Amino acid sequence: MVVATNNSFPGSNGTIFSPNDIIDLERGDPLVFEAYWKKMSEACTVVIKGWELMSYLSDDKNVCWYMLPEFGEAVRRLHHVVGNAVTQERHIVVGTGATQLFQAALYALSSDSQAPQPINVVAAAPYYSEYPSEIEILRSKLYHWAGDAALYDKNEPYIEAVTSPNNPDGVIRGPVVKSEAEGKQVYDFAYYWPHYTPITHKADHDIMNFTFSKCTGHAGSRIGWAIVKDIEIAKKMTRYVHMNSIGVSKESQIRAAKIIGVICDGYQNFGSMESELFFEYSKRIMRERWEKLLKVIEQSKVFTVAKFPTSYCKFTNESSESNPGFLWLKCDESIEDCTSYLMAKLKVRARGGQRFGASPKYARLSAIGTEDEFNELLKRLSNAD
Amino acid sequence: MVVATNNSFPGSNGTIFSPNDIIDLERGDPLVFEAYWKKMSEACTVVIKGWELMSYLSDDKNVCWYMLPEFGEAVRRLHHVVGNAVTQERHIVVGTGATQLFQAALYALSSDSQAPQPINVVAAAPYYSEYPSEIEILRSKLYHWAGDAALYDKNEPYIEAVTSPNNPDGVIRGPVVKSEAEGKQVYDFAYYWPHYTPITHKADHDIMNFTFSKCTGHAGSRIGWAIVKDIEIAKKMTRYVHMNSIGVSKESQIRAAKIIGVICDGYQNFGSMESELFFEYSKRIMRERWEKLLKVIEQSKVFTVAKFPTSYCKFTNESSESNPGFLWLKCDESIEDCTSYLMAKLKVRARGGQRFGASPKYARLSAIGTEDEFNELLKRLSNAD
Repeated sequence: MVVATNNSFPGSNGTIFSPNDIIDLERGDPLVFEAYWKKMSEACTVVIKGWELMSYLSDDKNVCWYMLPEFGEAVRRLHHVVGNAVTQERHIVVGTGATQLFQAALYALSSDSQAPQPINVVAAAPYYSEYPSEIEILRSKLYHWAGDAALYDKNEPYIEAVTSPNNPDGVIRGPVVKSEAEGKQVYDFAYYWPHYTPITHKADHDIMNFTFSKCTGHAGSRIGWAIVKDIEIAKKMTRYVHMNSIGVSKESQIRAAKIIGVICDGYQNFGSMESELFFEYSKRIMRERWEKLLKVIEQSKVFTVAKFPTSYCKFTNESSESNPGFLWLKCDESIEDCTSYLMAKLKVRARGGQRFGASPKYARLSAIGTEDEFNELLKRLSNAD
Repeated sequence: MVVATNNSFPGSNGTIFSPNDIIDLERGDPLVFEAYWKKMSEACTVVIKGWELMSYLSDDKNVCWYMLPEFGEAVRRLHHVVGNAVTQERHIVVGTGATQLFQAALYALSSDSQAPQPINVVAAAPYYSEYPSEIEILRSKLYHWAGDAALYDKNEPYIEAVTSPNNPDGVIRGPVVKSEAEGKQVYDFAYYWPHYTPITHKADHDIMNFTFSKCTGHAGSRIGWAIVKDIEIAKKMTRYVHMNSIGVSKESQIRAAKIIGVICDGYQNFGSMESELFFEYSKRIMRERWEKLLKVIEQSKVFTVAKFPTSYCKFTNESSESNPGFLWLKCDESIEDCTSYLMAKLKVRARGGQRFGASPKYARLSAIGTEDEFNELLKRLSNAD
């Protein structure tokens, strides 16, 4: 019997930074909740024996034949507890992260097209920086990247990626394309969880993608799921995952089901301590981080961030602001390139605004890294002049 | 703490078939070795705690940054023990099964092409039935399916997929294209393991793909790996997996590393009982199955299979025949469609020869399913007239 060692990189908390060390906040590696899962470690432990989970197949009665039934049930239960999405009479399709499912959705929405041209895929700027590369990597004749949704004015069919709350800026979004042409939407709800934003309603759209990575922080598991209305779309998405990777790791599925189950048990079992419930903990941590961030930025002569409106959260039954997974920083007008400034002056690695279809005066920094990284960021931001 | 339940489908041994039950041997679901892993269950058990394996990142010093170091080490150790491939001074790239890596290889070999046309991808018939669909699914402008490698006569760059031993027919293969144009090869060594074929040499090619599914039978883990000579190709393959799924399940990687470690320990530790070593067991089982199959087919008036040559296996130090993962059956000349015949007369579901670019007089049946399925197949084949 072997116990998995901690292979998290960068390492767990306890790091001491010298002023010359680069703080890498370019990616959104979600290690912020690691301490919580250390506390819940035993309850969430999975044990997998040598002979288990060997088959390609999981459930031949389900459209998504490679999905373990307990994973699908865990996902439905989680949305029921949180109230952030409709799952009744919907199909669940599991993917190797939401990234694979985004591509599965593009395939599903474009593969029957009779159009001679690839379908235009758009997203409103600032958009998720990886969309253009993910869409263009194989130079498909089915679809291609067509830029900022707000500028779309072609009278041709399109697919709009709607990320809400948005990555990088945390804004709540709906579709923005104004074209008369036939349009379809793929919703990316990676951040529609109580720790990032108030849960104002049960989302209910044709294709809604979620990811385990940003919900609980288990990015290494590469688990995402889509909630899909139309069975034909669910079949095509399943077909894409079949052709792309013949299914999704069962080890990851079973572990995600276990961890989601522990979260839901906390809310549904009598006698749980509120402070031990996942979304109470995760929201508190994110709120604390944002209070510190906003305080530092308020006093800054160099940086600004947009204000978030307050909304009533039906999950926590209180009004609150958003606590986005990223800090979408704007540098002072005199600074041309915010990312270069951050690196040169603060030794902080960020992702530049131009990657998101925005001005280089903006930069995105992860707010979901380790505590040590975050505290060091605060220190450096407050020292900037 | 939860113990993963057996979600294998179709279920473990003990099934009783009635003559009207359909035996589904259309896919190659590798449950043949399940009994071995039940015996080795405890030694191969992995325990993963709630807070472990959370990061996207694994090893920032490796080209394949999302690969757990222990997985890469396990793969190198396995090839050292078996002697079937060179890994010294080679890069290992882990994928969500060999399927994702095949597509990663196509991307790596075609993305820098200056040619106005997509690169032609070919494979000698009978070829792996999924190649055309995997290659064509997104209708890429980088590459497209160009059919039987043996018929390729264009003076244009090409990529040849070389599957050896071949799926469906178990034949040992090399490249067959005779064109003068620039050609690159992607080797699929899914079945180059001692239980399927004698290990005659250490394979050493630019890109060699292997899969955990067909080596140990753990298909549900979706783990494959590529051995790559050129670091630039390894970087591009890693880039594809990044864009496609931001890495590979760490749960699967750690479990594969553990199971491979147990196999290697058996060979490298003094005092192991030979009958308990994985490849001794797996080869014996496959040999027994093939002896029974060949005996039944020898007496059949309807079916034939090709003879395999005997070769010296450097791993087992004995001469032996191949024991392919599939039975590539030819029906009598009077039968037009072997697959329809198998279904109508024997209630056996097979995959038709035309799917492999061959005649419908051929059909492929899995030889790596459960023991019950296999025994029922033997019974039905021997009753055919």
